[in-house]
Amino acid sequence: MQYHFNGFRPGDPDISDAAPGREAGQGDLPDTVDVLIVGAGPAGLTLAAQLAAFPEIRTRIVERRSGPLEKGQADGISCRSMEMFNAFGFAEKVLKQGYWVNETTFWKPDPGRPGSIVRNGRIEDVEEGLSEMPHMILNQARVHDMYLEIMAKSASRLVPDYGLEFVDLEIDEAAGDCPVKVTLERQDGDRKGEVITVRARYVVGSDGARSGVRKAIGRELVGDSANQAWGVMDVLAVTDFPDIRCKTLIQSENEGNIIVIPREGGYLTRLYIELDKLSAGERVASRNIGIDQLIAAAQRILHPYSFDVREVAWWSVYEIGQRLTDKFDDVPHDEATQRLPRVFITGDACHTHSPKAGQGMNVSMGDAFNLGWKLVSVLTGRCEPDILHSYSAERQAVAQDLIAFDREWSRIMSERPEQGDGENGEEPRFQRYFIQHGRYTAGMSVTYTPSVLTGSDAWQDLATGFEIGTRFHSAPVVRLTDAKAMELGHTLLADARWRLYAFAPHEDPTLEGGRIRALCRFLAGAGNSPVRTHTPAGEDIDAIIDVRAVFQQDHRKLALEAMPEFLLPRKGKLGLIDYEKMFCPDPRKGDIFEMRGIDRQRGCLLVVRPDQYVAHVLPIDAYDELAGFFAGFMRVVPK
Amino acid sequence: MQYHFNGFRPGDPDISDAAPGREAGQGDLPDTVDVLIVGAGPAGLTLAAQLAAFPEIRTRIVERRSGPLEKGQADGISCRSMEMFNAFGFAEKVLKQGYWVNETTFWKPDPGRPGSIVRNGRIEDVEEGLSEMPHMILNQARVHDMYLEIMAKSASRLVPDYGLEFVDLEIDEAAGDCPVKVTLERQDGDRKGEVITVRARYVVGSDGARSGVRKAIGRELVGDSANQAWGVMDVLAVTDFPDIRCKTLIQSENEGNIIVIPREGGYLTRLYIELDKLSAGERVASRNIGIDQLIAAAQRILHPYSFDVREVAWWSVYEIGQRLTDKFDDVPHDEATQRLPRVFITGDACHTHSPKAGQGMNVSMGDAFNLGWKLVSVLTGRCEPDILHSYSAERQAVAQDLIAFDREWSRIMSERPEQGDGENGEEPRFQRYFIQHGRYTAGMSVTYTPSVLTGSDAWQDLATGFEIGTRFHSAPVVRLTDAKAMELGHTLLADARWRLYAFAPHEDPTLEGGRIRALCRFLAGAGNSPVRTHTPAGEDIDAIIDVRAVFQQDHRKLALEAMPEFLLPRKGKLGLIDYEKMFCPDPRKGDIFEMRGIDRQRGCLLVVRPDQYVAHVLPIDAYDELAGFFAGFMRVVPK
Ligand SMILES: Cc1cc2nc3c(=O)[nH]c(=O)nc-3n(C[C@H](O)[C@H](O)[C@H](O)COP(=O)(O)OP(=O)(O)OC[C@H]3O[C@@H](n4cnc5c(N)ncnc54)[C@H](O)[C@@H]3O)c2cc1C
Ligand SMILES: Cc1cc2nc3c(=O)[nH]c(=O)nc-3n(C[C@H](O)[C@H](O)[C@H](O)COP(=O)(O)OP(=O)(O)OC[C@H]3O[C@@H](n4cnc5c(N)ncnc54)[C@H](O)[C@@H]3O)c2cc1C
Repeated sequence: MQYHFNGFRPGDPDISDAAPGREAGQGDLPDTVDVLIVGAGPAGLTLAAQLAAFPEIRTRIVERRSGPLEKGQADGISCRSMEMFNAFGFAEKVLKQGYWVNETTFWKPDPGRPGSIVRNGRIEDVEEGLSEMPHMILNQARVHDMYLEIMAKSASRLVPDYGLEFVDLEIDEAAGDCPVKVTLERQDGDRKGEVITVRARYVVGSDGARSGVRKAIGRELVGDSANQAWGVMDVLAVTDFPDIRCKTLIQSENEGNIIVIPREGGYLTRLYIELDKLSAGERVASRNIGIDQLIAAAQRILHPYSFDVREVAWWSVYEIGQRLTDKFDDVPHDEATQRLPRVFITGDACHTHSPKAGQGMNVSMGDAFNLGWKLVSVLTGRCEPDILHSYSAERQAVAQDLIAFDREWSRIMSERPEQGDGENGEEPRFQRYFIQHGRYTAGMSVTYTPSVLTGSDAWQDLATGFEIGTRFHSAPVVRLTDAKAMELGHTLLADARWRLYAFAPHEDPTLEGGRIRALCRFLAGAGNSPVRTHTPAGEDIDAIIDVRAVFQQDHRKLALEAMPEFLLPRKGKLGLIDYEKMFCPDPRKGDIFEMRGIDRQRGCLLVVRPDQYVAHVLPIDAYDELAGFFAGFMRVVPK
Repeated sequence: MQYHFNGFRPGDPDISDAAPGREAGQGDLPDTVDVLIVGAGPAGLTLAAQLAAFPEIRTRIVERRSGPLEKGQADGISCRSMEMFNAFGFAEKVLKQGYWVNETTFWKPDPGRPGSIVRNGRIEDVEEGLSEMPHMILNQARVHDMYLEIMAKSASRLVPDYGLEFVDLEIDEAAGDCPVKVTLERQDGDRKGEVITVRARYVVGSDGARSGVRKAIGRELVGDSANQAWGVMDVLAVTDFPDIRCKTLIQSENEGNIIVIPREGGYLTRLYIELDKLSAGERVASRNIGIDQLIAAAQRILHPYSFDVREVAWWSVYEIGQRLTDKFDDVPHDEATQRLPRVFITGDACHTHSPKAGQGMNVSMGDAFNLGWKLVSVLTGRCEPDILHSYSAERQAVAQDLIAFDREWSRIMSERPEQGDGENGEEPRFQRYFIQHGRYTAGMSVTYTPSVLTGSDAWQDLATGFEIGTRFHSAPVVRLTDAKAMELGHTLLADARWRLYAFAPHEDPTLEGGRIRALCRFLAGAGNSPVRTHTPAGEDIDAIIDVRAVFQQDHRKLALEAMPEFLLPRKGKLGLIDYEKMFCPDPRKGDIFEMRGIDRQRGCLLVVRPDQYVAHVLPIDAYDELAGFFAGFMRVVPK
């Protein structure tokens, strides 16, 4: 964490100084805002937390409920989401409070004892080295709390406006700066029923599966006509089932399937019980399934193990289908070249699917993280608004994949195991599939295709372990100036900045003729340096594009005093030196050049998006290509 | 973290439910308390944070200042203190916000360039494997904040009573339960000057070097007649000195010495400048040394490097001598068998020394951590009050060591390096000494001698890596029930409980004749089981002595369902199973049996005190010795 850089400031560095006018909080809902977010679920809060760091953007988030969620809903946090939480600065809290999914076990009908189950597999939940972060379980309500805390501590002092329901919206591009007119209705308090109008530059519908914003822009969730019914319960139970503290997938002979999710705090357990497929249009509520029936079903499936429920913290019976919206903004397919998007939808408003693969909360947050930096970039004048088209393009493809995967996954999980499956030392089908799709469930399979924001793979061979379009795969390094062993990926913060990692060729970087020196000269001084052309006057040199160098030498072998000044930039009001731009391999944990397949002779440039995706790999001296890449979507700022 | 175990409870698990009557805070200072702490520095706050977890103990902490410290004073946090912070639950916050001391460098006069300095050494600051925690730097004010947060979130909702000065105390054993009458004086507000009386069962003077509590019990700091003057400054500076982000010890030719301490947040630097030795009774204030002089001195010593101070966050010029109080409680040496202590002093009230070895805050917190669990044990009726004698006995010896070390360390650091020192590939003297004493400065050298609380070393060979009397040296393990890779030492919380680690012999622990099974039978059922004889009826089985087992087998090889029930204890209102009692070696990070020299054939019992010190090593079947050890200081509770 870097702080005190504009002067010493006592107290908790996680609490930003309030922006002028926000000292006493954000105040009443104003008539106009830059971004109006509808819905304070995981998607809405991810977006709000990102925007809150920019008090110059007037953001508000309205929520129908009267206050924060307290329990229930989703609980799976993929490795990928943990990496994102780290960028927001609260991963360590989730690591402390949550359950770590280390192993997954598989149970099937016991061929020797009809009506009983038996363990037939146990695997590492996440393949070694896939991420520096584990797969975690923590209640969605607690994830909300972490975002709410960030928002409250941000310069904006952003807090959801609870008890406000989105009713409708209208877009009138002629109406000036804030062309979206939104109608809201108060849900509680003295003024219940009161209708309020807010004008917004942009509106984001993060209002869940029955999204009103989606309807207002004339889109719908399309897919299965029939829903799958699910029972879910969070319980405090006493059992002799030995895998109760492991994530476990159980297929019984005749009683159905269960997913066991051990929960945070050491005692709580979630069970998912697959119920019937409903007929088209049927609602599960009509079946009057109660908690007693869920418990009884769990007991039957877990036989011969006992399962004595001592307290039910939360339960739900709900229906869900695999459905998808064809586009995630208000611009019709055939008008994309004429119109700019004004309204977006994210999360469950765009896609719904079974809870089996644990993707709901994760993909929803991923949507918002993709949209967040784009809105920041446009609203702070860094980028032209047409980059906003890329949100739907990128995330709709992700959702399509998700739905297809979920369909297959659900089918396989619901199938009765075949005779002899998993016997004779063979891996059971279930488990095989689970392993094959580990990268998927961990959230690592997302790959953005080439576009203005994602380069071609012409130089991919310079860094084979940083695949263009996929998320930046962190690796261990040692920071040059203070020998701190850390993860390079932890330099990626949720601050809407781009990052340029210069992986140095083998020669000593302090030498005069070296390629790192030449690169620094270009970045610091050339007329077409992207750092120069896109950074507004008066801002720190790394405010828009944050350049970091990674050297091949041991950190004790490099002389800091001989490093290019560009890598020791002077920043802030006091012109202090930022000492956190240079890294070396970690001799204890492995050489990043080796681990990520970086060409030692040639080095490379790695461009990483604000949402941690690899945008480009380029030769270390591809100055024009680098400049051209950024010029493709960033504004040239007046000097 | 374990929570939800008495039923699901929404919200932040770090916030305990307020004890009855504390819902709206702790209220006004009452007339009588169990423990009155004087002084909210590191010592007083460590104690307060420990006691706050026990709302049945009426604790208050008074502080002369009008509010929390904001800057300045100490900043070094030893590995040992980090281990303690972990027990309190805020180590991860210090790891995130603080500076990690990774390497220390050494500079001396440049023989080739008179008047200049040159680096002549660079070492790992802490020897590999010494602790799972790093050496950290974070301002004392922030450490205070972390304790204050724990206190505020505890069941007691404890907050210091600011603006109250200790004036005097009187002990009158005839006066009933609360024999210590304390006089306080309000320092601010409308009622400034008002005198208040509080009666306390125990009083702890954590009121710093000029302690009034110490004076009130007729003790004094004894030692050097002359003080050493020091200048210290926390600055935001621009420099080309290359080691500014490493801890650095600089000896110049003629301009004196500096210690550079890089600080949290990436930009701040502390410099310690050794000034003159004062004559007896002389105060440094009389010399009128100002910040400009400190800066000028730093610039001279750092020559040829520039040092341009942009902001001074805090600075001080102060005098300090190596001094020690002969006893840390109110009981005269010759009355120890007749009287019980009522008043204690901790921290700087007991010992003062130079800031060079970075021990002030650490040893002070160590004092309080030693006293804390003893007070809890007595006030909750677990132990007889005579264990309170051990506080002074144990910590005075530690302080004696500290003073002796500090004297030697100061002498060596102040000496001019000899001609040729550190040349010809030889390590400089400075650096040699630093390495030799690394365990000391890390806080690991503390060794309590045999007493009622510390066993003999008769069976030390069963676990050579857990030295009796020293702090428990954590090692990696995998938790059996959920395969979580973790540190065994992180099961040691600041909850005043004792821990008994049963390191299992090699045989399969699930087998009927096994020694772990026999041990569990003894602990669960025998008439002289310490777990039975010292745990009050109605309390959880692990409320006083927390038993954990460590097996030699891979965690996948052990059948949970065949484990003794004693290791799957049912707890709390709901009788839920605690799944966190059993551990196995971590195949990735190393085998704890190997790492800590545990006898594989015989296994062993390891008794660990509530302050994380190893109290005893015993054979796995030494039931009588085990029972006898606990009976030596614990009350037998009625059943
Ligand atoms: C009852 C329920 C149970 C669930 N259980 C599970 C589960 O067991 N496992 C699992 O993996 N996933 C579960 N999910 C799905 C998971 O919670 C979602 O995938 C995830 O929360 C998606 O995040 P989101 O932000 O897109 O939408 P949501 O979390 O649904 O958030 C939408 C928010 O918008 C608010 N809102 C809706 N309409 C309006 C309006 N008109 N005006 C203002 N605010 C509005 C809602 O109150 C809500 O707070 C459940 C969802 C629900 C609703
Ligand atoms: C001004 C100053 C500068 C220091 N600078 C350094 C440094 O640069 N480096 C370093 O390593 N160490 C430094 N120290 C020492 C270091 O802070 C101490 O070793 C450490 O704080 C000891 O902790 P403690 O709790 O025992 O005492 P302290 O931190 O001194 O806390 C004592 C507390 O008691 C309060 N108090 C005192 N008398 C009364 C009374 N009569 N009634 C009520 N409250 C009272 C004080 O206001 C204070 O808050 C400094 C100490 C001081 C006082």
